[in-house]
Amino acid sequence: MSGAAMVELDRATALRLLSSAVVGRIVFTQNALPAIRPVNHLVDEDLIIIRSHAAAALMSSVDRVVAYEADHFDPGSHAASWSVVATGILRAVTDPAAIVRYERLLRPWVAKTMDQILQIEPRLITGFSLNGADADG
Amino acid sequence: MSGAAMVELDRATALRLLSSAVVGRIVFTQNALPAIRPVNHLVDEDLIIIRSHAAAALMSSVDRVVAYEADHFDPGSHAASWSVVATGILRAVTDPAAIVRYERLLRPWVAKTMDQILQIEPRLITGFSLNGADADG
Repeated sequence: MSGAAMVELDRATALRLLSSAVVGRIVFTQNALPAIRPVNHLVDEDLIIIRSHAAAALMSSVDRVVAYEADHFDPGSHAASWSVVATGILRAVTDPAAIVRYERLLRPWVAKTMDQILQIEPRLITGFSLNGADADG
Repeated sequence: MSGAAMVELDRATALRLLSSAVVGRIVFTQNALPAIRPVNHLVDEDLIIIRSHAAAALMSSVDRVVAYEADHFDPGSHAASWSVVATGILRAVTDPAAIVRYERLLRPWVAKTMDQILQIEPRLITGFSLNGADADG
């Protein structure tokens, strides 16, 4: 058997890698089924900040537990590949000053009104990186 | 407001993009909470094939509905960015000939025994690509 070794990340390293990524994927439940949407994000202290809009399916998960994942995989070289998953409650940001600040710092990629600022308060952050020989080695 | 336009993908284009990606993320429910794991995959006809192992949390979702997501985002140029989500039942592959074939074609990246071959039979495949001006434009 070949393949790279999975090395567990500590919380600080996992948060740093998550901060370094601009895109992640929010995982939630929609009509009792698993759902996932890619979004761009901002890490502010321990909070993951994303933007959404009132009609989004995601909005039904506000005040519920969601997962947020970011990763980097290089098929050519498995080293330096990593994945981080943060799990926590999704909350609407309601403080007007925070909304203004996040709207300035986090520009949506898609041409859609993204008038909702949401934050995930991670209770659990897990992650791994890959080290060692490539699978083909 | 700026940002790229989201263009919905048809099923054939979505499957082709999914096939072009080597990594995706399987989304499932674990202890009633949303869970996600990055894995490498193979698209065989309409089936998404992944490998797992008997002790994996994912195994409790066999015969249940899961989502599978792959994407490509280029922060420098939002054009050519896309995301595809396939939703369907996760099944264990039990046909010995199929197991041998998939084990040969799909090599796990991680140095772990991956003795379970699973397939997702997508009932729903959705996706979008980004076109147009960048968010900073």
